[in-house]
Amino acid sequence: MVQINPERLMTDLRTLRTFGAYKSGVHRPTFSDIDVQSRRWLMDRMTDAGLTAIIDGVGNVIGRSPVAGPKLLMGSHIETQPYGGWLDGAMGVIFAVEMARAVAEDPALSERGVDAAAWADEEGHYFPFLGSLSFIDNVSEDDIDSARNKFDGTALRDALSLAGLADLPRARWEADRYLGYLEAHIEQGPTLDTMDQKIGVVTSIIGSWQYEVISEGTQNHAGTTAMALRRDAGRALIKLASAIDQHFPKIAGERSVWTVGDLRLEPGAPAIVPGRARMLFQFRDADPAQLARFGAAFDEIVAAVAADDPCKITATRTSASTPSLMNQDFQDALSEAAEAWVPGLHQRMPSGAGHDAQILAKVMPAGMMFIPSIAGVSHHWTEDTDEADIVTGAQVLATAIGNILSRAAV
Amino acid sequence: MVQINPERLMTDLRTLRTFGAYKSGVHRPTFSDIDVQSRRWLMDRMTDAGLTAIIDGVGNVIGRSPVAGPKLLMGSHIETQPYGGWLDGAMGVIFAVEMARAVAEDPALSERGVDAAAWADEEGHYFPFLGSLSFIDNVSEDDIDSARNKFDGTALRDALSLAGLADLPRARWEADRYLGYLEAHIEQGPTLDTMDQKIGVVTSIIGSWQYEVISEGTQNHAGTTAMALRRDAGRALIKLASAIDQHFPKIAGERSVWTVGDLRLEPGAPAIVPGRARMLFQFRDADPAQLARFGAAFDEIVAAVAADDPCKITATRTSASTPSLMNQDFQDALSEAAEAWVPGLHQRMPSGAGHDAQILAKVMPAGMMFIPSIAGVSHHWTEDTDEADIVTGAQVLATAIGNILSRAAV
Repeated sequence: MVQINPERLMTDLRTLRTFGAYKSGVHRPTFSDIDVQSRRWLMDRMTDAGLTAIIDGVGNVIGRSPVAGPKLLMGSHIETQPYGGWLDGAMGVIFAVEMARAVAEDPALSERGVDAAAWADEEGHYFPFLGSLSFIDNVSEDDIDSARNKFDGTALRDALSLAGLADLPRARWEADRYLGYLEAHIEQGPTLDTMDQKIGVVTSIIGSWQYEVISEGTQNHAGTTAMALRRDAGRALIKLASAIDQHFPKIAGERSVWTVGDLRLEPGAPAIVPGRARMLFQFRDADPAQLARFGAAFDEIVAAVAADDPCKITATRTSASTPSLMNQDFQDALSEAAEAWVPGLHQRMPSGAGHDAQILAKVMPAGMMFIPSIAGVSHHWTEDTDEADIVTGAQVLATAIGNILSRAAV
Repeated sequence: MVQINPERLMTDLRTLRTFGAYKSGVHRPTFSDIDVQSRRWLMDRMTDAGLTAIIDGVGNVIGRSPVAGPKLLMGSHIETQPYGGWLDGAMGVIFAVEMARAVAEDPALSERGVDAAAWADEEGHYFPFLGSLSFIDNVSEDDIDSARNKFDGTALRDALSLAGLADLPRARWEADRYLGYLEAHIEQGPTLDTMDQKIGVVTSIIGSWQYEVISEGTQNHAGTTAMALRRDAGRALIKLASAIDQHFPKIAGERSVWTVGDLRLEPGAPAIVPGRARMLFQFRDADPAQLARFGAAFDEIVAAVAADDPCKITATRTSASTPSLMNQDFQDALSEAAEAWVPGLHQRMPSGAGHDAQILAKVMPAGMMFIPSIAGVSHHWTEDTDEADIVTGAQVLATAIGNILSRAAV
């Protein structure tokens, strides 16, 4: 059985945590100085693990196994949300490196190997899933030309130049190199923690549709402009958000979620009728039919509010991902390993969050394993997981990939 | 009859416009370098006008007439809203200086005079109505100690020091010096412009109550947190704003207005359930009973939403001003002068915006005169008024104060 080294694993995780440490979390935006430093550090860890480490033209860090036999691709992302958690993404990357080391150390798996990857910008500071999408040949040069940092507007091209990546080739997947892709991640929700379970075997990654809604009215004095004459851009979007909140529960599935993540009134002063407002809205579900149902309802609600309001309302669907099924054999291997280590304390579950595994699943079998998030907290610096649960997760994952690799024909 | 000099008036207005020019408007925040420079420039204009110019310990600039007979106090404010209009406040100040000059030049009014004032921070970058409130003895040293810039948090004390005002005495009104206070201002609403009228005679300045509402929930991942488990701070305030918008029209008076001027979700990212949100809300009316009715309704709506929502909602009334009646004799003098210059093209109307006149009205008779705002635009750099309307306004005001001053016993 593949043996991990818990002390080595935790040491790497704790070291990575120091790059951009913020309170008990991490602030490591994609292509920031500290993010680039962490990628260089990761390449050294991969080299130490006996992998051939490269960084590619979009910031992907990939460590390739030198063996000729069956291989798994494993990884996650290394940048964080702003002032985010220390394990989100980082854990899956270090797990991948530890799996590569553990497999290399296992004499029974001498002709088998693991490639480890940190996919760039899964969190979408510039372009969500940039690295994994590029790896499966789904990002054009035009896409890169037009991408900008969503917080400060920096062009992706400029960020890649500054990071010293502009002239590097982009890594691309090779059709016959891998048995498939496996990713470990914190759950980012409360299900495992609440039920006191240790392992989640992901059945599917839900799809999400995202919208930006802009309302344009007339900025004016809040004391002198009669209600009947107002074109209040803020009120228009409040009406829209409220209508969504009234209607969506009536048509929602059991695990459907929808979120107004941002709503901004301009200029945002107490005595000024807002002249412009912007709302970010998204919904998610594992069922493509449910996503389509939400999409149609959203369009109808926007049309109804726009017909009834003097402001000009423009809704743009900025992204739409389809739900992604995880490979059945990988699910079985993960469940079997979990039952061996933590009998009865595992379950199959969909992933409410998006992950690079949904991108890799387009071109190869893919699987995902979750470990608990304390109180379900995620995308916040207070995100955390018990160290014992991290180690258990790594042990389960090592057993699962050991079985997958050993069953594969050389 | 008192004669203004239109060219002199417009030259001063155009020069003042250059201090902090931004596109066709002005950015001159209270106690910024450019604001302090404009105050020094104004003192020179007052001195040229034969007034004794002082700047006081809160930034009020006051030019005192040397005559011994009956006097009017006139003025407005000189700082602007951020990227605001060039006439808002500035026009009333320059009108006051021009009135002082025109009265001094009129042989028939040789024993009569005008004091001109620019009241500091009417716009409330630090403390709304700071200057006029200080002048009527309604600002304590503690108030000044605790006031901070609402945009950048600078302490008012520090700003006063930087402006070189820290050691200056504060000017205070003298009980028997004035017949009363008169202020000219752009309307800041569309009534005069829409009706093609030239002069508004203000009957009252409406009162406003302002609130800050904070909602505290739990920040979490927007994909992994089930709807039933969410404490969405943004959704809570959207519900509140929507409930206000449903209920207030049912209990509103004819000229009531209410505004959600700002609504901010934190952290404001597409994939994060907002953990905290903040809303700025205000309503205004000329009738104190209507303000009380709105206040009670607001409290009830907050309580109802808070009872039904998992977030903690806290509403704080941050200010409450009472409606202020303008002096009847001043109204009559303004109407009479308007009828002489622009027969039939004037009306009496309440002021939806707050003005220093409402503060001075607490201690002396006060009056206000409006001229049209093109399309009613205000608190925005595109605010403007036809030059012909500005000159007409100054002529009407000069005739009105000539009559008030000449009728007063020496």
